[in-house]
Amino acid sequence: MTEYYRLTGSQILRLIQQGEVTVEEYAKSLLARIKEREHIQAWAYLDPELVLSQARRLDKIPLEKRGPLHGLAVGIKDIALTKGTFISPLPLANNLGSAADASVVIVLRAAGALILGKTATTEFAATTEGGPCTNPHNPNHTPGGSSSGSAAAVADFQVPVALGTQTMGSMIRPGSFNGVYALKPTWGSISWDGLAHFSVSNDTVGFFARCAEDLEVLAGTFRLIDDEPVPESLSVANTKIAFAKTHIWPKAGPGLKAAWEKAISLLSRHGAEVEEIELPEDFSKLKDWNPIILAGEGRAAFLGNYLVSKDQLTKVGVDAVENKTNTTRKTLLESYDGCARLRPVWDEISRKYDAVITPSTVDDAPRGLEYTGDHSFCSMWTMLHAPVLNIPGFAGEHGLPIGLTVVGPRYCDLHVLDMGKRIGKIFGEEGGYISQIA
Amino acid sequence: MTEYYRLTGSQILRLIQQGEVTVEEYAKSLLARIKEREHIQAWAYLDPELVLSQARRLDKIPLEKRGPLHGLAVGIKDIALTKGTFISPLPLANNLGSAADASVVIVLRAAGALILGKTATTEFAATTEGGPCTNPHNPNHTPGGSSSGSAAAVADFQVPVALGTQTMGSMIRPGSFNGVYALKPTWGSISWDGLAHFSVSNDTVGFFARCAEDLEVLAGTFRLIDDEPVPESLSVANTKIAFAKTHIWPKAGPGLKAAWEKAISLLSRHGAEVEEIELPEDFSKLKDWNPIILAGEGRAAFLGNYLVSKDQLTKVGVDAVENKTNTTRKTLLESYDGCARLRPVWDEISRKYDAVITPSTVDDAPRGLEYTGDHSFCSMWTMLHAPVLNIPGFAGEHGLPIGLTVVGPRYCDLHVLDMGKRIGKIFGEEGGYISQIA
Repeated sequence: MTEYYRLTGSQILRLIQQGEVTVEEYAKSLLARIKEREHIQAWAYLDPELVLSQARRLDKIPLEKRGPLHGLAVGIKDIALTKGTFISPLPLANNLGSAADASVVIVLRAAGALILGKTATTEFAATTEGGPCTNPHNPNHTPGGSSSGSAAAVADFQVPVALGTQTMGSMIRPGSFNGVYALKPTWGSISWDGLAHFSVSNDTVGFFARCAEDLEVLAGTFRLIDDEPVPESLSVANTKIAFAKTHIWPKAGPGLKAAWEKAISLLSRHGAEVEEIELPEDFSKLKDWNPIILAGEGRAAFLGNYLVSKDQLTKVGVDAVENKTNTTRKTLLESYDGCARLRPVWDEISRKYDAVITPSTVDDAPRGLEYTGDHSFCSMWTMLHAPVLNIPGFAGEHGLPIGLTVVGPRYCDLHVLDMGKRIGKIFGEEGGYISQIA
Repeated sequence: MTEYYRLTGSQILRLIQQGEVTVEEYAKSLLARIKEREHIQAWAYLDPELVLSQARRLDKIPLEKRGPLHGLAVGIKDIALTKGTFISPLPLANNLGSAADASVVIVLRAAGALILGKTATTEFAATTEGGPCTNPHNPNHTPGGSSSGSAAAVADFQVPVALGTQTMGSMIRPGSFNGVYALKPTWGSISWDGLAHFSVSNDTVGFFARCAEDLEVLAGTFRLIDDEPVPESLSVANTKIAFAKTHIWPKAGPGLKAAWEKAISLLSRHGAEVEEIELPEDFSKLKDWNPIILAGEGRAAFLGNYLVSKDQLTKVGVDAVENKTNTTRKTLLESYDGCARLRPVWDEISRKYDAVITPSTVDDAPRGLEYTGDHSFCSMWTMLHAPVLNIPGFAGEHGLPIGLTVVGPRYCDLHVLDMGKRIGKIFGEEGGYISQIA
């Protein structure tokens, strides 16, 4: 069978559009790949028969009625999975065969996407305890979390694109650990309806892909439109790129440090004007506000599941409802207002550059599956509501992938993607990581 | 049959707890009332057999396993109803018999509440075009919207308490027009999971009741805990109460003006220290930011329904997705940041008083059902995330009910309720409105 599964989303969309491959043929190729790579355990739910029947239904749609994502296979983060049982209030998160779809899935289906299945995540997408899903680059290492299966499946050629969500670092971290692109757009730019909240002021839907072009296609479908058009250029020459280590930098591992130096030298060599910048001291408070906001918002988010089945609720949820950290409303409001005050400050800082680069993760994926890794470098950008894109390309201390993040001002998602594409070409070709995934 | 339907929630809870009435007997009383008052059209969905079977199930629960709301009948706003068809992405909003519950319904059920049915609302809870539901005080007048049926059913003794939601003024306005208490708590204090968003930064779940005590019971169930305990007092004597006309005051009708003067004189006579205050000029911008935020957030909220069935989507939704107002991301962000800047300013102003009173509506309910009324006085508090409580008691220009709003600092929900209870006793007894609902 032709190895359609290895193609990017944009490539397969073209082939399907030109009639060179049917959606069913494509689906069969992916299903064969998934079967062969079952040991990665990227999927929480996948029914091959359902996938094939959907594929055949798509093939029957007349050409003129096909959507822009016709036949594109997408994995959906199973945001409510917990230890093999589904205890989410939202069956739409649990049952692909249901009449119910989250808003984001409605948009994908309406655009013609083939919903492949539900990808593995951590309990309520709220913990850093790993599940059975492994890193396809090395099964002894975590794929990161909580969007574990989405990132692993995309890296492993089991699906070209997958939906993830980020509350702290649940997209950027697995993106970095699995060596794939991960876009968490501006907060609020994609509807959260039908997903389960942990932190309403942070939770954001995003996507994984193996190339920036695929994310551009999805951004188009979800109408992530910037005010200013993206300039037409394919290089980084003459762009101004800032490198922001942030207050988390003392945690940087040897892999991150090496990637950082290499990135600076690569971009300089390609003609970018590179500048290291320091964030104002106030930004160091974001790491302190983060647990306060999660504790405060978790009180409301987990109350329903707590009352129905406290025993089955993750400890993070129980602690939030019982307010184990004694978080006051006053500190919650101070944290809210602090974040709100810094958002326009960040926008102004980042508008001075074509792109700002910042670390994605402390280093590459740690060994073991128990712990999905440190999200310190990610959560501040989630709280600032800024669009972030993980760009793969480097090797970390264990020889596994590590990425860097492009971050921009709010609602400049397409600019971030555009610069990410230009920068990603360089990091991908010259960053030094060579995937061993066969 | 004993007229159990006329009792408040707190009264019926006590009777059921003491074994003086079964949940089934109570349900039959409500169902008889609802049948008798069908012409109000408060319900979008109500299955008497389902209600009775749930009631009997509740009656079988052993005493020691009963929740704090055991047997309390609750109406649920049908947030996704549109012209007789249900096109919401969320079946949980559509089908009471479904396995799916919104988080707020999970909490109610877990506490033992009897879910009575779905109450009438406007299209997507997003428009000001009225439905068939009428004002029980006068069927030629609107009940207000978008939580029309919830407020009307509570006022009409068809259910003691009902769930509503507020994005602009969808709780306070129908609360005022129907002469009932309406609590919109602090944004984020009750989970929105399972409801359909219009404006993620404004949408808030709340409740209607015929007395403040019932709202206190619900606030307890949803754990709306303030940092500071509520002082023990039943009067307004020696409290400091501010009256804030706001920048919307030029719209005030004769009924509001009369209620305003009467409220000041009543509270002064009862020993409160009353002061009229002016909000800083910046607060006048909230009315300009409101349509920008709705247009900006509606782009994401309605995209799914737009792509699937644009023809069935309300014009508000179509216009938002197509960005008919040419709202830029820049103005959206300026509006976000402006609201965020004013929130702590408002908290500080209101903390100087035991309560701040502000108008609920321009006047009482306008004649006709086409238009659910002006929400200008309400939306600024929603945007400030402040807890608001409509207190009934006065008569407006058509001789129908008009209320006033108590508003407090964020996360002082119990303080607002407590002061509302004290003030409500006075407004209820001496405000001058005598309900004619038989």
